[in-house]
Amino acid sequence: MSPFAESSAGRVAALGEVALLERIRSWLGDAMPPAPEGMGDDCAVLSRPAGNLFAADSLLYARHFDDTAAPVRAGAKLLLRNLSDIAAMGGEPRYAVMSAFLPPATSLAWLEHFCRGLADCAGQYATALVGGDITESSEGPGFSLAITGYAARPLLRSGGQPGDRLYVTGALGGSLRGRHLDFVPRLAEGRWLAARPDVRACIDLTDGLGKDLNALLRDGLGASLDTAAVPLSRAAHDIAGESGESAFWHACNDGEDYELLFTLDGATDPVGFERAWSNAVDTPLARIGNIRARAADEAAVIDAASGKPVGNLSGYTHLGA
Amino acid sequence: MSPFAESSAGRVAALGEVALLERIRSWLGDAMPPAPEGMGDDCAVLSRPAGNLFAADSLLYARHFDDTAAPVRAGAKLLLRNLSDIAAMGGEPRYAVMSAFLPPATSLAWLEHFCRGLADCAGQYATALVGGDITESSEGPGFSLAITGYAARPLLRSGGQPGDRLYVTGALGGSLRGRHLDFVPRLAEGRWLAARPDVRACIDLTDGLGKDLNALLRDGLGASLDTAAVPLSRAAHDIAGESGESAFWHACNDGEDYELLFTLDGATDPVGFERAWSNAVDTPLARIGNIRARAADEAAVIDAASGKPVGNLSGYTHLGA
Repeated sequence: MSPFAESSAGRVAALGEVALLERIRSWLGDAMPPAPEGMGDDCAVLSRPAGNLFAADSLLYARHFDDTAAPVRAGAKLLLRNLSDIAAMGGEPRYAVMSAFLPPATSLAWLEHFCRGLADCAGQYATALVGGDITESSEGPGFSLAITGYAARPLLRSGGQPGDRLYVTGALGGSLRGRHLDFVPRLAEGRWLAARPDVRACIDLTDGLGKDLNALLRDGLGASLDTAAVPLSRAAHDIAGESGESAFWHACNDGEDYELLFTLDGATDPVGFERAWSNAVDTPLARIGNIRARAADEAAVIDAASGKPVGNLSGYTHLGA
Repeated sequence: MSPFAESSAGRVAALGEVALLERIRSWLGDAMPPAPEGMGDDCAVLSRPAGNLFAADSLLYARHFDDTAAPVRAGAKLLLRNLSDIAAMGGEPRYAVMSAFLPPATSLAWLEHFCRGLADCAGQYATALVGGDITESSEGPGFSLAITGYAARPLLRSGGQPGDRLYVTGALGGSLRGRHLDFVPRLAEGRWLAARPDVRACIDLTDGLGKDLNALLRDGLGASLDTAAVPLSRAAHDIAGESGESAFWHACNDGEDYELLFTLDGATDPVGFERAWSNAVDTPLARIGNIRARAADEAAVIDAASGKPVGNLSGYTHLGA
């Protein structure tokens, strides 16, 4: 479905801002509490603590979704991207505000579906949409959503230690085959992990394992990767059949997996940990290597089997450098 | 200064996302606390309560600023717009996150000045910049900033009662002559007002008195406006000399005044109130009318002198309906 309306009557420009805001409020329904917590004043007045987590993420037409995406899925994706960040901290979401950049030709029907998809997702994950703003633009539709959340013990990227085991949830690669628009943020998994003091570092995979693994490897840390253990999605295999790259390459480089990559204290018995995980959540878990100390002249990531640097580990690069 | 670089080496695309984020972090300096509160994890981990206020506002090239704007002023304006919303609630700012939409040709030099202007403003108003994201775009540069803040007693738009007096700070109109890029958010004034229980409703003037006054007039409320008392800026007079409209028209319709419009309980002695104001703050204050009950068939705003509806009260209209 195209975000742009053919008829002038079906465009946001036909309404003007005040009437458009009223429509958006009605489309968001119960996902937006009544004013002054919801839309209607200069700021939202929050009825409970906003939490100790704060993040923002964006969604732009022709970059993060296109005409093939159902607008309800695009609307959900705007929030899901942010929820994945909350999940990576081991937190629970609380409040969100949205900025919309809308071309005058933006279709009201498309925007209604977008907002309803966003609202359904907000209801599902107990996130209150409390405000935002609209800017007339040429490009777009584009959206930025800022979210707050709470974690009693936030899981940082920086907690890993030499000897920690590396784990990843789910299966990686090939997200463009549909998963990038239809994924479950790993909120329950993140909260379960945050409750265990032996889980020491965590990140959500948005740019691909190849790039995001490096975020856990601050100065002096490297990783030994059991490449055969990296869980490959069905879509990674399918897309590899056409691209000429391996499914592993796609798992490392496609991005938008929205799975959790975390480290577990090497002193913990991994079998017991994995049994506890399986008793708590249904999501698959794969042990894919270890954190290690490394010298300045060593590669950040080496193949556990061969001891050689792992190639193809770049991940999705933004801004085309 | 143009936001776009002539040479490819001077563009954000020359850096790629990781290096660009590092540059932005350095440009923001002390305005961004160290990780995990500042940039560097999936969410910012806040070290003190985020507050009970939450809002977002945006800034887009060619809409809110152009090549004639110094980039430091554009960067400051992104935050100042949000601070004005916090001021209107009688609050103090706490934390902000920024989403940036950057064309690959965005000039690094321009972006550096933009970020330094933003950081200076954040330092001046004790707002911690704690994160955000970057999206590659075609239009822009464009930015959305989400802010949290705290107000012990938030000043709502909806608190006005018949008999309340209407006040406005500063002077209105002609903001395009420079003020829209260089204004002082009325934070101290807002906090002073919020501490007085007889101040009952407040809004900041962003779309012009003509439109924003209506936001204080919910069902059954109208206003009697002492049109001669509306404070007209020097710029409103200057621009009126060229536009053929009156300075009053510009005060009602130009927008971007970022002054506070508020109501005071009619039982309070206005002279005593105004004396207390003058003792507390330097900002000029004008008593411009009253809130009144109105019948369904009456105009929302009438001229106090003539009793007739005030014309020309539309304000800036977005999305060109």
